[in-house]
Amino acid sequence: MAEPPPTDRIFEVHRGGKISIATKVPVTDREGLALVYTPGVAQVCLAIAEQPGLAREFTIKQNSVAVISDGSAVLGLGDIGPAAAMPVMEGKAMLFKDFAGVDAYPICLDERDPDRIVEIVCALATGFGGINLEDISAPRCFEVEGKLRQRLDIPVFHDDQHGTAVVALAALHNAVRVVGKELGPSLRVVVQGIGAAGVAVTNLLMAAGVVDIVGVDRGGIVTPRRRDARDPIFRRLGKQTNPRGLEGPKEVALAGADVFIGVSSGGSLTQEQLDLMAPDVIVFAMANPVPEIDPAVARLRAAVVATGRSDEPNQINNVLCFPGLFRGLLDARARQVTNRVKLAAAEAIAGIIPAEELGPERIMPSPFDRAVVPAVARAVADATAGR
Amino acid sequence: MAEPPPTDRIFEVHRGGKISIATKVPVTDREGLALVYTPGVAQVCLAIAEQPGLAREFTIKQNSVAVISDGSAVLGLGDIGPAAAMPVMEGKAMLFKDFAGVDAYPICLDERDPDRIVEIVCALATGFGGINLEDISAPRCFEVEGKLRQRLDIPVFHDDQHGTAVVALAALHNAVRVVGKELGPSLRVVVQGIGAAGVAVTNLLMAAGVVDIVGVDRGGIVTPRRRDARDPIFRRLGKQTNPRGLEGPKEVALAGADVFIGVSSGGSLTQEQLDLMAPDVIVFAMANPVPEIDPAVARLRAAVVATGRSDEPNQINNVLCFPGLFRGLLDARARQVTNRVKLAAAEAIAGIIPAEELGPERIMPSPFDRAVVPAVARAVADATAGR
Repeated sequence: MAEPPPTDRIFEVHRGGKISIATKVPVTDREGLALVYTPGVAQVCLAIAEQPGLAREFTIKQNSVAVISDGSAVLGLGDIGPAAAMPVMEGKAMLFKDFAGVDAYPICLDERDPDRIVEIVCALATGFGGINLEDISAPRCFEVEGKLRQRLDIPVFHDDQHGTAVVALAALHNAVRVVGKELGPSLRVVVQGIGAAGVAVTNLLMAAGVVDIVGVDRGGIVTPRRRDARDPIFRRLGKQTNPRGLEGPKEVALAGADVFIGVSSGGSLTQEQLDLMAPDVIVFAMANPVPEIDPAVARLRAAVVATGRSDEPNQINNVLCFPGLFRGLLDARARQVTNRVKLAAAEAIAGIIPAEELGPERIMPSPFDRAVVPAVARAVADATAGR
Repeated sequence: MAEPPPTDRIFEVHRGGKISIATKVPVTDREGLALVYTPGVAQVCLAIAEQPGLAREFTIKQNSVAVISDGSAVLGLGDIGPAAAMPVMEGKAMLFKDFAGVDAYPICLDERDPDRIVEIVCALATGFGGINLEDISAPRCFEVEGKLRQRLDIPVFHDDQHGTAVVALAALHNAVRVVGKELGPSLRVVVQGIGAAGVAVTNLLMAAGVVDIVGVDRGGIVTPRRRDARDPIFRRLGKQTNPRGLEGPKEVALAGADVFIGVSSGGSLTQEQLDLMAPDVIVFAMANPVPEIDPAVARLRAAVVATGRSDEPNQINNVLCFPGLFRGLLDARARQVTNRVKLAAAEAIAGIIPAEELGPERIMPSPFDRAVVPAVARAVADATAGR
């Protein structure tokens, strides 16, 4: 990320919060009151009571998403709690609205137990057409999302997992084109950091046809046999990835690898480690705010370098995904977010850059490219409808 | 209430819901993004993490109210469930915004257990400066509100109880002035209907200095000794009211009474019963949508008649209270809604009508009188601050 703006300007913009409620019709006289409130509203209530599907026609459910966090893993700040997480969730709601016309409302929960979070979200989901989970720490986020997906009939999407996975896959689509490789069984990928994002990136790459993925963390290569592999998600990842059965330190995984994807918190990639990798290597150093390797250094050796930073080329930014994704999900009245939907979103983002414009410093569209949201929304709606 | 507007017009206005999210500053470029989202937002998050009170300065908490219902007692419609209750809660949010600039968000809970509702509301309260409970059935509403008031440090207000009580007291202030009686120990009041509204009206009248209140319901006069008096709230009310120890049918209570306040569902007051009451009787027939007695019939005998209907004089409407009340509570950063606050709100509403304009058909201001909200807000803020 670039330098933040001046502090006084930041606090000035945040004073009183960043979003508000707007009424679609003004209520200024008895006639208006009778239309939107009693007695008129009773007809709409009775219609929905008789035919619950009408809630999608005649209430805000049609266009509303709950942005839900417990404040346990906020940005690079960590566990700052629900009150301090609000400015981020408000910012997210702003992006939903300004980018895609989605009405998102931030709800920060003073609760950490995954089962209780699930109960709360299920209870309050009635008025929403989708749930965006945000900044919930791993491994609780896996449990929360998994159970919500089973119980709710609206899409549930943990952006730190799947949003990151979608934009990483989008970037990879174009990066392999630039270096003349293929997104398939022959591609060797190392994913560093096995938290919310790392697990989701790995799963989505596998769904996209990548087979040779090796996860690494501070303990080296992820295998189901590692002595510290207590977590079931970690063990499952160890089983599903690493087809060549590698063991040992990170360097073993990097030897000859085509792609490095860093989604670690505070991890690094040294120049020496980079030298172990294959020719025309692709490096996504997505750690925030400090990438795993200085992009300028990485470019000395790598064919394509991408980061999460807005002041570098090839920014991999979740805002390329979630506004258009939820726009498409709401438009299609989707009941879940399938892999098919996420794959379609990634291809749509990648497809924004015309083939003739693709290059080492041009694999991702700008978050402000107005073509992104409609393309993603259409792809998502089509993938939802099974078209 | 007057006739509802044409059905097609009602559904047209409700299509897609009646409220939306507005962003206070547009996010259209990298500079804006850096200001309201990463990296700038991190400074605000950290400031709130260090000093939680800053959430009232730099998040939407400053001006936000959650409108919470379980859809168990909606308008006159009864138990229609959370999805069908949404149009009412959206309408309420519109009134909050258009009348008082309060950002209210409707949250309908698919949950009926009072303790679980309390847990859910406590967990999601972080981002709100106040909680407006709405259309939750008695006696669960008493338990839910009571426990929330104990646990939360923001005001909790069940409008069906206390909003109704405030506007009824406001109307009574002016009605006794019109008939030359006094709101005090000598005034005999009968409250018909011992649900959420009846209990709250009785309590607030007592707080205002009325002593001789007799509650009646389908079983006659409320006493703690009645065989069907299982409910603890009912028994407490029986103990605290009825100082003359009356027993028997409603007629016993009505004999010589100065005021009839009907907040029953489907209850009635006959012309014969009205004839039992004192001279210059005051009748508030607030049952919705059909008052306990035809106002035209009541006016043949009563000195002042008020109802909930917008097509009759003296409409007793909660919208006279809740927008200004929450405006004042938010402005004063109140942590609770005290009796003192409710009494001040009632006096402020009554005080809108100049003494020289008071009359049998002029005891309540119009909901669209622009003087109401500022007067109520100021009175509430003053009463909160102890001024």
